[in-house]
Amino acid sequence: MTVKLSYNKVAGQSVERLAALSDGIFAVAMTLLVLDLRVPTIEAVHSEHDLGHAMVALAPQFITYLMSFLTLGIFWVGQQTQLNHLARANRDLSWIHIAFLFAVTLTPFSTSLLAHFIALRLALLAYWANILLLGVILYASWGYAIRASLVKDDLPEDVPAAVCRRIKIAQALYAVGAALCLINTTWSIAFIVLVQLNYAVAPRIRFSRR
Amino acid sequence: MTVKLSYNKVAGQSVERLAALSDGIFAVAMTLLVLDLRVPTIEAVHSEHDLGHAMVALAPQFITYLMSFLTLGIFWVGQQTQLNHLARANRDLSWIHIAFLFAVTLTPFSTSLLAHFIALRLALLAYWANILLLGVILYASWGYAIRASLVKDDLPEDVPAAVCRRIKIAQALYAVGAALCLINTTWSIAFIVLVQLNYAVAPRIRFSRR
Amino acid sequence: MTVKLSYNKVAGQSVERLAALSDGIFAVAMTLLVLDLRVPTIEAVHSEHDLGHAMVALAPQFITYLMSFLTLGIFWVGQQTQLNHLARANRDLSWIHIAFLFAVTLTPFSTSLLAHFIALRLALLAYWANILLLGVILYASWGYAIRASLVKDDLPEDVPAAVCRRIKIAQALYAVGAALCLINTTWSIAFIVLVQLNYAVAPRIRFSRR
Amino acid sequence: MTVKLSYNKVAGQSVERLAALSDGIFAVAMTLLVLDLRVPTIEAVHSEHDLGHAMVALAPQFITYLMSFLTLGIFWVGQQTQLNHLARANRDLSWIHIAFLFAVTLTPFSTSLLAHFIALRLALLAYWANILLLGVILYASWGYAIRASLVKDDLPEDVPAAVCRRIKIAQALYAVGAALCLINTTWSIAFIVLVQLNYAVAPRIRFSRR
Repeated sequence: MTVKLSYNKVAGQSVERLAALSDGIFAVAMTLLVLDLRVPTIEAVHSEHDLGHAMVALAPQFITYLMSFLTLGIFWVGQQTQLNHLARANRDLSWIHIAFLFAVTLTPFSTSLLAHFIALRLALLAYWANILLLGVILYASWGYAIRASLVKDDLPEDVPAAVCRRIKIAQALYAVGAALCLINTTWSIAFIVLVQLNYAVAPRIRFSRR
Repeated sequence: MTVKLSYNKVAGQSVERLAALSDGIFAVAMTLLVLDLRVPTIEAVHSEHDLGHAMVALAPQFITYLMSFLTLGIFWVGQQTQLNHLARANRDLSWIHIAFLFAVTLTPFSTSLLAHFIALRLALLAYWANILLLGVILYASWGYAIRASLVKDDLPEDVPAAVCRRIKIAQALYAVGAALCLINTTWSIAFIVLVQLNYAVAPRIRFSRR
Repeated sequence: MTVKLSYNKVAGQSVERLAALSDGIFAVAMTLLVLDLRVPTIEAVHSEHDLGHAMVALAPQFITYLMSFLTLGIFWVGQQTQLNHLARANRDLSWIHIAFLFAVTLTPFSTSLLAHFIALRLALLAYWANILLLGVILYASWGYAIRASLVKDDLPEDVPAAVCRRIKIAQALYAVGAALCLINTTWSIAFIVLVQLNYAVAPRIRFSRR
Repeated sequence: MTVKLSYNKVAGQSVERLAALSDGIFAVAMTLLVLDLRVPTIEAVHSEHDLGHAMVALAPQFITYLMSFLTLGIFWVGQQTQLNHLARANRDLSWIHIAFLFAVTLTPFSTSLLAHFIALRLALLAYWANILLLGVILYASWGYAIRASLVKDDLPEDVPAAVCRRIKIAQALYAVGAALCLINTTWSIAFIVLVQLNYAVAPRIRFSRR
C-alpha cells in the first residue's frame, strides 16, 4: 500500500517533468531553426539594394523555417493535449515520449536539409519521414496510454477516437503532400504549408464543441 | 457536464504549458543573441592593446545585443502580464501565442542583420518590422482573450484598456524611432534604446496604483 | 521554529527549481547534439544521387547522435526518479546535482569527439569516462540523499537498494562495452547501444511491480 | 479590493515565471559554454597520439569552462535563494532580475574571451567585470526586495544580513583574484577557481544552522 502511494506520487510528478523536458526541447528546437536564416556576409553587401537582393534570396530558408515552426507548433499542441489528459505516467510512456522528442530534435536537421536542397526529392522525402515519425510515435503513445489506463477518469468517451482520427487524417494529408513531389517539390511544400496553416488557423476538432 | 469538466482542466493546464514554452523560447532567444558577440580571432590580437581595440570594435554588436535583450525583456513582461490574467486558454489563443513566439525567434536574426549592417536603412526597417509584428500579435491576443472571455473574473475593469493603450503608445514611439532612419539609422537606434530604457527603468503603467 | 519553517519552504522549492534547471540543461544538451549532423554542402551535391551518398556518409554522426540521446534519456529518467523521491533538498545536494549537470553539458562535446574519431580508442574512452562520471555522481547523490534524510517518508524500503543496484549494473555493462575497444571501437559502440536500447525499451527494475 | 486581489495573483505568478525564465537562461548559458570546447579537426589528427595531444591542448578551454560553470552555478544558487524568499514580485524587481539575466547571458562571451586570451590581463578583467556585475545586481535586487517588502513574512531576522554579507565577502575575494593579475593571469584564475570550489564544496553560510 505504501508502495502504491509512493508509485502514484512518482508517476504524477513524471507527467509534469516529462512536460517540462518536452517544452524545453520544443523551445530549443523551434529557436534553433532560425540559425538557418544566415545573415548575408558583409563582403557581399555594399548598398541597400544589395541587402534587398540578399534578403529576397533567403526566401527558401524563410519558407522552410516557417513550415518547420508550424510543424513543431502542431506537434507541440498535439503532445500537450495528450499529456493534459494523463492522470499519471510510467517508464514505458516516458520512453515513448523520449522517442518522440528524438524526432523533434531531428527537425532542425531535416529542415536545414530541405532548405539547402529545396528542389531535390530526397530532401523532401527525408523531411516527410520526419513528420511521419512524429505522427507515428504520437499515435503509439496515445494508444499505449489508453491501454495502460494512464488517462484521467473524467476523459470524455469520444476524445480517444477523436485524437486518433485527427492524427490519421493529418498524416494522410502529409502523405499526399509528399507524393506530390513526383510532380515537383514546390507543389509538395505548398501543399504541406497549406495543410499546416489549416490546422493552425482553422482547427477542426475541438474537445469543447458543446 | 463531464465534457465541460475535462475541458476546463485541459485548458487550465494549457496556460501553464504555454507559459513554459514561452519562457523556454524567450530564454533561448535571449541567450542566442550573445553568439553575435564574436570573440576576436587569435590571429588578430597580439597584445593587450590589440585586444582593447578589438573590444571597442565590438560596440555595434554590443549595442544591438543590449537593444534586443531589452526588446525581448519588454515583450516577455508584456506577454506574462497577459497570461497571468488568463483563467484558461483554448486552441485559438494558443496559436496566436505560437505566432507571437515565431516573432520572438525571428529576433536573433533581425538583431544580427542590424548588427552587421548598422548603417543601412533596410536592416533597421527589418528590425522595426520585427518589433511591430511582436506588438501587433500581442495586441491581437489580448483582444481575442477579452472577446472569448478567457480572462479571470476578478480582472479590474480598467486593466484591458490599460494593456491596449500601453501597446499602442509603445508601438507609436517605435514607429517614430523607425521614421528617424530617414535622417540616420544611428538616430533611430538611439531613440529606440531610449524608449526601451524608459519602459525598463521607469515603467509608467502599473496595475497596483492604489 | 520560524527558522525551521522558513528553511523547509526554501528547501521544498529548491527541488522544483533543481528539477527545472535540470530539465532545461537536458533539453538544451539533447537538442545541441543534432548540430553535429551537418547538412552536406551545396558544392558537394549536384543530384539526388549525390545527396543519397552524402546522407549515408552521415551514418557515424547519426549513430553517435542516437547513442548520446539514449544516454541522456537514461540519465534524465534516472535523475528524475531520484528527485521525485526527495522531500526536500539542501545546498550540498544542489551542488552534487550541479556537478551532475556539468557532466551532462560535457556530453555534446564527448559525442562530437567520438563522431569525428569513431575509430580511435581515446575518443571512445573519453566518451565512456563521461558516462562513468554521470553514473558516479548520480550514485553519490542518492547515497547523500539517504544519509542526509532528504528522501520522502513514504519511500518503500526496497527502493534505495534498487536504485543503487541499477546504477551499478548499468555501469558494469558500460565498462564491459568500453573494454571491448581493445578489440575494436565498433564493438564497443554496438555493445553500448544494445545496453542502452535494453534500458530504454525493456527496463528491468520497476518500483511498482505489485 | 478586487484590484488588490488581482494584483496579488499576478505578482504571485510572476515569481514563478521569473524563476522559469531564469532557469531557462541559466540552462542555455551553462550548456552553450561547452561550444567553446572545440573538437580537434580531422585534418590535425591521424593517430591516438595526435588526439591525446590535441585534448591536452584544450586545457585552457576546459579550465575556463569549468570556472564559468562554477560561476553560473554559484549565482544560480544565489538567485534561487533570493527568489525562494519572495512572497511576490513587481515590475521593478522583474527588471532588476532581467538585468541580472543580461549579465548571465554575457558569461559565455566573457568566458570565451578569457579562453582565447588566457594570458592577457584585459581578458581577465573583462571576465571579472562580468562576475562583479552579477554580484552588484544580485545585491541590489535583495536590497530592493527588502525595502519594497516583497519578502515572505516568515523570513528569519538574520537572513537579510547573511545574504548581503555573503555577496560582499565573495565579491571581495573575486576582487583579490582579479588584482592578482598584476602578477600573472594564471594566479588570478587559480585563486578564483579555489574561491569558487570553496563555495561549491564547502559553503559556509547556511540558513538552517539551528
